[in-house]
Amino acid sequence: MSHTIRDGEKLLARVRRLKGQMDAVERALVAEKPCGEVLQLLASIRGALSGLTGEVMEAHLHEHVVHAESEAERAAAAEELAAVLRTYIR
Amino acid sequence: MSHTIRDGEKLLARVRRLKGQMDAVERALVAEKPCGEVLQLLASIRGALSGLTGEVMEAHLHEHVVHAESEAERAAAAEELAAVLRTYIR
Amino acid sequence: MSHTIRDGEKLLARVRRLKGQMDAVERALVAEKPCGEVLQLLASIRGALSGLTGEVMEAHLHEHVVHAESEAERAAAAEELAAVLRTYIR
Amino acid sequence: MSHTIRDGEKLLARVRRLKGQMDAVERALVAEKPCGEVLQLLASIRGALSGLTGEVMEAHLHEHVVHAESEAERAAAAEELAAVLRTYIR
Repeated sequence: MSHTIRDGEKLLARVRRLKGQMDAVERALVAEKPCGEVLQLLASIRGALSGLTGEVMEAHLHEHVVHAESEAERAAAAEELAAVLRTYIR
Repeated sequence: MSHTIRDGEKLLARVRRLKGQMDAVERALVAEKPCGEVLQLLASIRGALSGLTGEVMEAHLHEHVVHAESEAERAAAAEELAAVLRTYIR
Repeated sequence: MSHTIRDGEKLLARVRRLKGQMDAVERALVAEKPCGEVLQLLASIRGALSGLTGEVMEAHLHEHVVHAESEAERAAAAEELAAVLRTYIR
Repeated sequence: MSHTIRDGEKLLARVRRLKGQMDAVERALVAEKPCGEVLQLLASIRGALSGLTGEVMEAHLHEHVVHAESEAERAAAAEELAAVLRTYIR
């Protein structure tokens, strides 16, 4: 990630929010909260995680594929993206 | 899709197989087959559809982003890919 | 699927619409339409397929799990649902 | 979640592992590690989160739908499950 510092700060803020959401799941399990509540928390984490992942993928596509410093870097970055896509699109 | 004829044939064969799988769902519903069976058929269609989609995405990334004919084409193709990704990664 | 005829008709109508969408992908590939267009068609098929699948899952949960005719049927139907869920939630 | 203590411990262990994986993403961002590495970490978190979610869903289906204490509890628990499914199957 050689992106601008500002983007990095936004991504970090998202990761920290995700950690907070995970803490909420932990507390819900410890307090033996209803399953339905735990499932809602997990669904919102999935949404937040997907949002973060989509953002990193787009940043990667933009910085390392579209604006690669060499054709070799471009091909390698595209292959990295394709490898990750295979784990999502299935 | 300006890809080689051979790739096109493979993709078409996949689409035709998918249509055959959809016909099987239609027959299962008409014959009032058990839900569990219908759900299995739908799950295998999702798998086949994802396989096809992944293949088209990778072909697009390779042909129109990595090997674009101009920087303008590259940026446009990357934006198309990003738009589609947003509908999958969520 | 021992559900009411009316639900069956609605599901069949959805399956036939999906087949129509698949035909559109086939035509787009034959006509060598742009990748981006093919990807859009595939994304809309995924949405429609998911909608149909969600509907069949809910019908199954309602008819065969909640309103099962016996505890044995209930346990079997729940296991079928769990098996299908494992292929989606991953 | 009124499940057995042992299941609760296993779920908590999974949540704590997920938090550790999230810490690894945070460290990778702070250290400006390559995008590809961050994307791999995020993909493995998605896998772990899905595994956990599937487990909670199955526990919910088994405890609160199949082995509900009343028909009212069963219907309510099935509706909770259906609501969560709608956010996943789309």
